[in-house]
Amino acid sequence: AAGLPAVAQGTPSVRWRMSTGWPKSLDEMYGSADALCKRVSELTEGKFEIRAFPGGELVPYAQNMEAVSNGTIECNHVLATAHIGTNTAVAFDTGLSFGMNARQHNAWVQRGGGLELLREMYKKHGIVNFVCGNVGVQMGGWFRKEIKSLADLQGLKMRVGGIGGMVLTKLGAIPQQIPPGDIYPSLEKGTIDAAEWIGPYDDEKLGLNKVAPFYYSPGWWEGSASITTMVNEKAWNDLPAPFKAAFETACNEQTLRMNAAYDALNPPALRRLVAAGAKLNFFPKDVMDAAYKTSQELWVELADKNPDFAKIYPEWRKFQEGQVAWFRVAESALDNFTFNAVSRSSK
Amino acid sequence: AAGLPAVAQGTPSVRWRMSTGWPKSLDEMYGSADALCKRVSELTEGKFEIRAFPGGELVPYAQNMEAVSNGTIECNHVLATAHIGTNTAVAFDTGLSFGMNARQHNAWVQRGGGLELLREMYKKHGIVNFVCGNVGVQMGGWFRKEIKSLADLQGLKMRVGGIGGMVLTKLGAIPQQIPPGDIYPSLEKGTIDAAEWIGPYDDEKLGLNKVAPFYYSPGWWEGSASITTMVNEKAWNDLPAPFKAAFETACNEQTLRMNAAYDALNPPALRRLVAAGAKLNFFPKDVMDAAYKTSQELWVELADKNPDFAKIYPEWRKFQEGQVAWFRVAESALDNFTFNAVSRSSK
Repeated sequence: AAGLPAVAQGTPSVRWRMSTGWPKSLDEMYGSADALCKRVSELTEGKFEIRAFPGGELVPYAQNMEAVSNGTIECNHVLATAHIGTNTAVAFDTGLSFGMNARQHNAWVQRGGGLELLREMYKKHGIVNFVCGNVGVQMGGWFRKEIKSLADLQGLKMRVGGIGGMVLTKLGAIPQQIPPGDIYPSLEKGTIDAAEWIGPYDDEKLGLNKVAPFYYSPGWWEGSASITTMVNEKAWNDLPAPFKAAFETACNEQTLRMNAAYDALNPPALRRLVAAGAKLNFFPKDVMDAAYKTSQELWVELADKNPDFAKIYPEWRKFQEGQVAWFRVAESALDNFTFNAVSRSSK
Repeated sequence: AAGLPAVAQGTPSVRWRMSTGWPKSLDEMYGSADALCKRVSELTEGKFEIRAFPGGELVPYAQNMEAVSNGTIECNHVLATAHIGTNTAVAFDTGLSFGMNARQHNAWVQRGGGLELLREMYKKHGIVNFVCGNVGVQMGGWFRKEIKSLADLQGLKMRVGGIGGMVLTKLGAIPQQIPPGDIYPSLEKGTIDAAEWIGPYDDEKLGLNKVAPFYYSPGWWEGSASITTMVNEKAWNDLPAPFKAAFETACNEQTLRMNAAYDALNPPALRRLVAAGAKLNFFPKDVMDAAYKTSQELWVELADKNPDFAKIYPEWRKFQEGQVAWFRVAESALDNFTFNAVSRSSK
């Protein structure tokens, strides 16, 4: 159209493939990857086209990190902790159990030295990482029976992976790896006793409230589920500067927008789940205390085994302590007052 | 350089001026406006250049909204509540006292129908608005004497404007309008009893701890200080689509990055202030309760007087109630546990 900046003659066209860690049914998570690609295209007048693929289509879910590392695909869109088998330090990219919340994590990444530390670690894998989304605090999952104390976790077969699975193992539970489509029948038959998925908006689609009515909060192992796009280092270095700027800006935009989407969609979904019979519950104090203590022990163990983990952990922890001190003075003080006041007046 | 997308022949060049509401000494706030402009330039290969100006250089601070409305300047970068004299409903753009926190506000704007409501209101002023930053919860300011109860606010002369000033007037205080450079001498001489500015990082530069040592939290009138760029509607409509995309994406990026910057910079600044003698305090419960109640009464009054306020308020409030219900289940539950646990172990 007249007045539109014409596509420059001679501008190179770049085509990338993005393998996501999500089935299309996770419409916000997959949708955010898709929105990222669309934005990059829009910002480059269609010269830099990235196509997002549902999980498993290009490479198996578990190989999303390796495939970027070896250049099979240019980039992915994943929860980095799905790849702690490759390097446990990727956990700092997603967030640790009882770690920083979404805002604090973003502060660490954007202005607290976090991105630099993560980049140094990923460089060893030939990867350049970008934060490109956040789910916020996830739920603790669906349980067939009430959890009255820590003792009820003994021998409990639960669908949970990553860091949560490592901590829960130490607490006596038995983590299970089960694909999303098998969660419902496994809970129905009692093959497993519990399953965590994401939060109200995504959980609702699986209908787990019908087979495991006890819905626990909070998902302490994912207090900030930060989403990552890992980019093959050579593919990144080959990009023209304006395409790099477009990619980075679009990632930052999705970090804001994915979190906003989940924050907007979770409240009505939770109301519908409770109306449909979900019994909302909080983990008992002794479970929370034991999980916190066990998590701290786990960080020491992981630091002993992995120099990358050992390098990032003290910096990350120091930043968290500063955030906690400040959030207790301002954010939490006002949140707690306002949430109580609004809650009272809206009853 | 070879391989770079060449600037398209025939692409129109656009030059805009952005009048900010900040002196350059607010280096993060002004810096975010500047970063927004630089990013837009980078995304458009220098074809869309916006130049940010310190407050007062292009138009007086108080005329930033009017100047965009009448096309004197193409855009501004302000705290919208500085313009409640023009339309009280702009308060929903910045955030109300005891309103939503930064994440909740962004959820409302991005996915909760908030942007559409704000756009409809601003359209009457010939303005298209964009959220482009957030400071988070501000501090409640510096006081020469301790505030032990609500009675201590009677007759208290305080430098505070906007919504905070309206609520504090109802509580018996006497708001004062004083330019930043005059705050220190006014407090020193006792011409005023208290002054609010922003938060630890910016407050530190004014050195107010030396003349008004009682530092109060939280700044309940700015629980989410969301920053706005108002764009002249005609200037916006004249932009080519890729320039619109660049501007919008850069605003979303700064919404994330300004908040991250303040979250990263405030904790060490608060530590330094306390070490330098600031006496950190929380507003007494009766002050908080009275301020909350008075705020709710104020919304009813403002809705009675202004149809724009009346239209947005019930939608905004309904969204806040949903956010509060959900945040109490997940975010706050985990924040409160983790903050206590980390705080105990970091002592």
